[in-house]
Amino acid sequence: MKEVHVIGVGMTPFGILEDSIIELAEKAALEAIDDSQTIEYGFDRLIVGTQNPDEFTGRGHLSTLLADRLGIVPAGAFRVETGPSSGSSAFESAVALVGSGLAELVLVIGVEKMSEVERGTASKILAKMMSFENETRYGATPAALAAMVARRYMHDYGLTRDELSLVPVKAHKNGSKNPLAHFQKEITVEEVSNARIVAEPLTLFDCCPTSDGAAAVVVASSTVVNDIGLADQSVKVVGIGHGTDYHAVQHRLSLTSFGATMAAADAAFKMANMGPRDVDICELHDAFSILEIVNMEDVGIAERGNAIELVKSGATGVDGAIPVNPTGGLKSRGHPTGATGVAQIRDAILQLREQAPSGTQVDSPKVALTHNIGGFGNNMVVTLLTRRS
Amino acid sequence: MKEVHVIGVGMTPFGILEDSIIELAEKAALEAIDDSQTIEYGFDRLIVGTQNPDEFTGRGHLSTLLADRLGIVPAGAFRVETGPSSGSSAFESAVALVGSGLAELVLVIGVEKMSEVERGTASKILAKMMSFENETRYGATPAALAAMVARRYMHDYGLTRDELSLVPVKAHKNGSKNPLAHFQKEITVEEVSNARIVAEPLTLFDCCPTSDGAAAVVVASSTVVNDIGLADQSVKVVGIGHGTDYHAVQHRLSLTSFGATMAAADAAFKMANMGPRDVDICELHDAFSILEIVNMEDVGIAERGNAIELVKSGATGVDGAIPVNPTGGLKSRGHPTGATGVAQIRDAILQLREQAPSGTQVDSPKVALTHNIGGFGNNMVVTLLTRRS
Repeated sequence: MKEVHVIGVGMTPFGILEDSIIELAEKAALEAIDDSQTIEYGFDRLIVGTQNPDEFTGRGHLSTLLADRLGIVPAGAFRVETGPSSGSSAFESAVALVGSGLAELVLVIGVEKMSEVERGTASKILAKMMSFENETRYGATPAALAAMVARRYMHDYGLTRDELSLVPVKAHKNGSKNPLAHFQKEITVEEVSNARIVAEPLTLFDCCPTSDGAAAVVVASSTVVNDIGLADQSVKVVGIGHGTDYHAVQHRLSLTSFGATMAAADAAFKMANMGPRDVDICELHDAFSILEIVNMEDVGIAERGNAIELVKSGATGVDGAIPVNPTGGLKSRGHPTGATGVAQIRDAILQLREQAPSGTQVDSPKVALTHNIGGFGNNMVVTLLTRRS
Repeated sequence: MKEVHVIGVGMTPFGILEDSIIELAEKAALEAIDDSQTIEYGFDRLIVGTQNPDEFTGRGHLSTLLADRLGIVPAGAFRVETGPSSGSSAFESAVALVGSGLAELVLVIGVEKMSEVERGTASKILAKMMSFENETRYGATPAALAAMVARRYMHDYGLTRDELSLVPVKAHKNGSKNPLAHFQKEITVEEVSNARIVAEPLTLFDCCPTSDGAAAVVVASSTVVNDIGLADQSVKVVGIGHGTDYHAVQHRLSLTSFGATMAAADAAFKMANMGPRDVDICELHDAFSILEIVNMEDVGIAERGNAIELVKSGATGVDGAIPVNPTGGLKSRGHPTGATGVAQIRDAILQLREQAPSGTQVDSPKVALTHNIGGFGNNMVVTLLTRRS
């Protein structure tokens, strides 16, 4: 595969926002284009990662619409959708296009505007990613499935309620220093453990919010990187993997491990000729606190059953040996579903460029891993990014 | 780019069907897998091209769902959407994945189930591909925009109503021999010209139907082709291009030519090192009869203003010099939007393999061009396919 680089990033604040889905996408995209200094270069493709703009906002056909609004016609444009991992899947398509030589310069936008519909409607839209036959029609929700994972993990490995609370506490501590985060307020173990139950044992603070927001990255070939003279800030895509698992949780081999993550991580590490020990910083999909624990083990930065020990030791903190979600993760940064994967890549890249917000910057990371979940644990993308030097 | 081949094809009947969207996708996919003899090989990716299954059928997350149902977990799976060109855009992503080396074997499914909702609801869902600010809110419909194109083309080039009727007459003649076509009945110039007006000057028989259906293709690397020993039936992807135009028709440079088609065709021909004279057979997106005329000129098989002369001479018939839509096109084969692009590629491949239905097979074609429209004339994909020999 030809070398693939990311040369520009952009992101709006995440939260409950006034901007329309189009305005959010435009703002993130224009910031990424500006950051990449490609405004006069000419894009070959625009890829929009978004879960369900038609039902969340009544807006369709965003790929052409945004190519027009951003002034990059006649660049080919398309939308990619894999539920909440739509942003990472859009990034994968950009990597394939540049990696194949079909494109030299690709703009990727991840966006979701979730607050225009009532909360109950939003839940129904999100529930479409679950299995109707095996889950939704029996009243299961993503939180209920995550609660089953947590219960089983607690049973198998002895994880306690207060230990689990350390995960969102870390998320909020990091997010409190991220000016774009949905929640910028620290919380305590007591607040998490004693909050309103959503699906026992998970409380309100184990669950990420539904958010509005957008993120964008500019993906380029070596030719473009050299033409524009952006080698200093370019980040190389050294690995990418994409895996699925059985749609319904009940059909899977394990409740406490996601096969789709392992397939995606294996492929990414194999492509990069790396292993989990090479990773300096992780963005893991913590839509529910228990998922960060499971994901740590599935991508291989923690041994099975042992992730919580890393959390307790501070190893996953900003100053730790293997920082996880230093800008707040989905829990604190927020989770506009289609935007999240691109935001993870954007934040990982700012870490590698050592331009993360004050208090969130990890000490000189060289290799970043991002991990994004689509569906409930059944459609994962893992990327490995390195500083070019 | 690494070589990219298509080694298997499948398609359901198109029409108003009983099968669910999932059943349609499965049937086309299983036929393509069977045709490609890859059932035990292991897919790397599944790509689903579909315009709006959430609103047409209430079903979401089809990529994971189908990977599960087809037994190809943990293959990475995603959905691609560009309105009615979703199928071709999905194919483009498969070409990029195999062309980059990120994947060796990719299953592409195009599918749409449009008949579960009322006709008025279907029209509203389809209208989302148009510009709300400039078109939809003033009551414009795709047929109304196509009528404007026809009026202007008639004004500029002297095309007559009865001449235009020759296009759907040819479509139905060809479709009458295609056992999978939505309409398998010949029509006359008089029937077309005198049918109920949809948007003057276009009548009912100038407009394709809304249909249900699915098509699938198996995309593979040279390694797979050689491993499986399928060189004889493999077709090579020698060119692919993707272009956009301004979202609203009123913002474009011309009413009688689509810039997005020209951008896509230019890119495809450049990649293949070919020109329009090298093409032996075309699949052009004739959602409205006038579009076949415009498309012929935009891809370069007819001179500007002269396409109807080719039609009148019989050159675009099955036995002509440059057959267009020999299996019926969108008008007669039908138009389940997300399926159409894949069906075009499937039908073009059967032509190259000389396995098209009796009465539709062109004499020994070597090079096929497919052209698929997304939005109203603003998101086009053009492919160039050749027999491997």
